[in-house]
Amino acid sequence: MNYLRNAWYVAAAAAEVVREPFRRIILEEPIVLYRLESGEPAALFDRCPHRFAPLSRGRQIGDDLQCIYHGLRFDKAGVCVLNPHGSKSIPQTARVKSYPLYEKYGYVWIWPGDPARADPSLIPEFDFLEDKKSFRTVSGYLTIDANYQLVVDNLLDLSHVEFLHPMFARKEGVDSHRTEFSQEGNAIYSRRLKSNSSLNDFARLFWTSPSEKGDGRANMRWTPPSLLYFDLGVTEVGAPVAEGVCTPAAHLLTPETPYRTHYFWSQGRNRKLDDEKLDEILHNSVHRVFTYEDKPIIEAQQEEMGEQTDLIAMRPVLLEPDIPGIRARRVLGQLIDEEEQASATPRKSA
Amino acid sequence: MNYLRNAWYVAAAAAEVVREPFRRIILEEPIVLYRLESGEPAALFDRCPHRFAPLSRGRQIGDDLQCIYHGLRFDKAGVCVLNPHGSKSIPQTARVKSYPLYEKYGYVWIWPGDPARADPSLIPEFDFLEDKKSFRTVSGYLTIDANYQLVVDNLLDLSHVEFLHPMFARKEGVDSHRTEFSQEGNAIYSRRLKSNSSLNDFARLFWTSPSEKGDGRANMRWTPPSLLYFDLGVTEVGAPVAEGVCTPAAHLLTPETPYRTHYFWSQGRNRKLDDEKLDEILHNSVHRVFTYEDKPIIEAQQEEMGEQTDLIAMRPVLLEPDIPGIRARRVLGQLIDEEEQASATPRKSA
Amino acid sequence: MNYLRNAWYVAAAAAEVVREPFRRIILEEPIVLYRLESGEPAALFDRCPHRFAPLSRGRQIGDDLQCIYHGLRFDKAGVCVLNPHGSKSIPQTARVKSYPLYEKYGYVWIWPGDPARADPSLIPEFDFLEDKKSFRTVSGYLTIDANYQLVVDNLLDLSHVEFLHPMFARKEGVDSHRTEFSQEGNAIYSRRLKSNSSLNDFARLFWTSPSEKGDGRANMRWTPPSLLYFDLGVTEVGAPVAEGVCTPAAHLLTPETPYRTHYFWSQGRNRKLDDEKLDEILHNSVHRVFTYEDKPIIEAQQEEMGEQTDLIAMRPVLLEPDIPGIRARRVLGQLIDEEEQASATPRKSA
Ligand code: FES
Ligand code: FES
Ligand code: FES
Repeated sequence: MNYLRNAWYVAAAAAEVVREPFRRIILEEPIVLYRLESGEPAALFDRCPHRFAPLSRGRQIGDDLQCIYHGLRFDKAGVCVLNPHGSKSIPQTARVKSYPLYEKYGYVWIWPGDPARADPSLIPEFDFLEDKKSFRTVSGYLTIDANYQLVVDNLLDLSHVEFLHPMFARKEGVDSHRTEFSQEGNAIYSRRLKSNSSLNDFARLFWTSPSEKGDGRANMRWTPPSLLYFDLGVTEVGAPVAEGVCTPAAHLLTPETPYRTHYFWSQGRNRKLDDEKLDEILHNSVHRVFTYEDKPIIEAQQEEMGEQTDLIAMRPVLLEPDIPGIRARRVLGQLIDEEEQASATPRKSA
Repeated sequence: MNYLRNAWYVAAAAAEVVREPFRRIILEEPIVLYRLESGEPAALFDRCPHRFAPLSRGRQIGDDLQCIYHGLRFDKAGVCVLNPHGSKSIPQTARVKSYPLYEKYGYVWIWPGDPARADPSLIPEFDFLEDKKSFRTVSGYLTIDANYQLVVDNLLDLSHVEFLHPMFARKEGVDSHRTEFSQEGNAIYSRRLKSNSSLNDFARLFWTSPSEKGDGRANMRWTPPSLLYFDLGVTEVGAPVAEGVCTPAAHLLTPETPYRTHYFWSQGRNRKLDDEKLDEILHNSVHRVFTYEDKPIIEAQQEEMGEQTDLIAMRPVLLEPDIPGIRARRVLGQLIDEEEQASATPRKSA
Repeated sequence: MNYLRNAWYVAAAAAEVVREPFRRIILEEPIVLYRLESGEPAALFDRCPHRFAPLSRGRQIGDDLQCIYHGLRFDKAGVCVLNPHGSKSIPQTARVKSYPLYEKYGYVWIWPGDPARADPSLIPEFDFLEDKKSFRTVSGYLTIDANYQLVVDNLLDLSHVEFLHPMFARKEGVDSHRTEFSQEGNAIYSRRLKSNSSLNDFARLFWTSPSEKGDGRANMRWTPPSLLYFDLGVTEVGAPVAEGVCTPAAHLLTPETPYRTHYFWSQGRNRKLDDEKLDEILHNSVHRVFTYEDKPIIEAQQEEMGEQTDLIAMRPVLLEPDIPGIRARRVLGQLIDEEEQASATPRKSA
């Protein structure tokens, strides 16, 4: 399958990456993730060029990885620096790809494309993840056995919330939604306003006022390839957003294979920052919703699609809430096409 | 794979079909089965045309099914009757196939082909299933991971009983069999008479006479596509059939995929009608024979055949008891060919 | 996949083959193994030519196998000797392939090719397995989910021992190795001498002298198709081999499929012949090393290779210790080519 390669994806939560190497498949490539003695994260193609043992089974010697099978050693750039055998000469082809990484927002980001273009300023903003004074955050990880586009669709069409997620549903159902879609550059926005509407069970976790109604908002921002920022909140009816409950979230999707997706999420809040019990409730609630409500439906979609990865190619009925998802597919498709044409050009001239 | 589509298959035992929708794959198509408020059974293609969520995961609103993902509602004819989103207009393509059903003999029958041709009088006779005065019946269901033709072969060649099923074997073995095969229209008959022969353990469950021998019969009737009626019984030597033990059975096979078969069975008896203990013994015995004796061998056959579905294409050695199975394959193959030619004709003229 | 067919492979440990038939896949062919009344082992293609039931599910009647499904009986040559049905005539095609077997060294050897060429003298020497006076032996069996060539590579390149197997590693690492490779006819030899070197934990199991160093050797002999003899031992520094510890081993590999290998091993010793406790320690140690150290790495290699069976086709980096494995692949490839050309010739002239 074709992916956007010149882009930042989440490789792992920062806490997952330790000295001890571990393996993760990203865009169908096996990658070994570990930390150097300095604490800096490193990533190599996880296949020894000698006899294909995964380097992640080996061990660290200082900043190098030593293959478990015959002991070739590779530095953080993927260059073989020791051949312990025979004449000990190192074959020129004894090197593996290394990947640019950048640590930010509690995640280790990876750039699978041209290293020269790996500019950390291209990571989109998720500022609540750094603003520890105003926000407290819980995080989690799951995998979904479906193409990542189906997960993007799910997040860009939040009309499903009223049907699939009792915890997020409101008495008024989708009738209370005022929706807007827009595109700014390569970002797609899907906004839902639920003014003067009843509170759902999720909002009640943070709501301290006696009011039974509020002005709710559920605004999603998608940026390529599959990074979503969710501005979720509720205020007293008519009050400014800044005074209300803000529960922003990050939904960060990384394709593992055409049929499997890494799903990293962080759920923030600007209320009850010291309530550790609430941390637990929140983590469990979000985990339950994603794992027991979204995941089975998205996986059932993929099952119906069989080996097909592109839902649109199967001519589904389209409804208005599909617009942002369709647009995101178009933007991403175009970026992938451009990337492929760009990488094809030098070959032609060669 | 090609199936006979203009034919009745068993979709489910009547008791399986309730208000709550459930999914079953039939002839490779996902189907949701449920009951209307009137108690009438209904069947729709189990894939929402919007984003392919299975409708069987949704819930019933009166006689309609509401999709769990974004709430489209479909009536029993598969027509979308509610789009809760945006302008609420319903796309013309928002419909799914509905299937003719008919409830009879304790089963819900389905007609996967042209609805206009779904004539309930085409369901073959299994009258013992309705004659509650003379017969008591136990029923069961299993799946077999093999092409349904292999199960038909198994049932049309009952010579295997003497080797595979200790409960049905007789001291005399196949030597006591007198066999006859015949065809009447599209029905194939395989008759085995075991006159003045010892009793097997199954017959002894019903046998009350002191005689150690009886006239046994094991007559199988196949009708397309894969419906088998088994006239099994034993009488005192020389006595008329009507006076003897009759234990008729229905073996109703529905292809799930080329490699998996739904197997519905009902075992009747005209003796000890009030003996509930015997119900249990009978159910467990038949279940055990099918599950632990037939199923593993039929599945091993399919395993040897790999992805092939047609045993005959693999040039097996043929023996005399194979004749009825071969004929049934020929009749069914011809019916499928005719159906395909008929459905091809209009396309040509179009 | 193409295999060398005119060659001896181990079908089973002698003790595995009993009267009761059992099934094993060898070179992708299902084979039923059993013993005749005389104790002689027999092997038939494990698929009844009638309806493809595995003969291994049937039972023995004297020296014949009776199919469990409809009772055809086959003799040890694979010829059908009884059809119990109808006219009882036996179709000429009712026969299955039988395989030449030979029992030696505690194994039942099988010849999958032309029976006329099955000469037992072609089984390579593993004499320690017969010399009960000088050697005591423990044996085991495992399967490895990888192409058998990867297991051969593993055994012909024992440089991996210093990295993968703590029990066999020496303080000096690979630096203490002096290695030699040679070919004699179709046999490949890979010799490693570790003179005046520290003892590994395995050697210490047998070492009774106070010396802290010894002259170690680890010499592997490969003969086609995938039979390896391992001359492993250690002596007092400067002493003749005959006076030292000898722990010869047999590693006998039989391809099950392109992606799965039967691995039979026997580990001998010329010390502490009466020590039953040591039998247990030795069996468990060797089993642990193969199962928890070699097997996971070899299977990971295959996983990296996907459906590819030939590592060399994937252009790995080659190191000096790879030479014997590469040579063995060349010898085997040539033998397979010759065999295929020989078998193609008659067809051309026909
Ligand atoms: S496979 Fe890595 S050193 Fe051999
Ligand atoms: S998938 Fe059924 S309504 Fe969207
Ligand atoms: S399958 Fe063996 S006798 Fe029928």
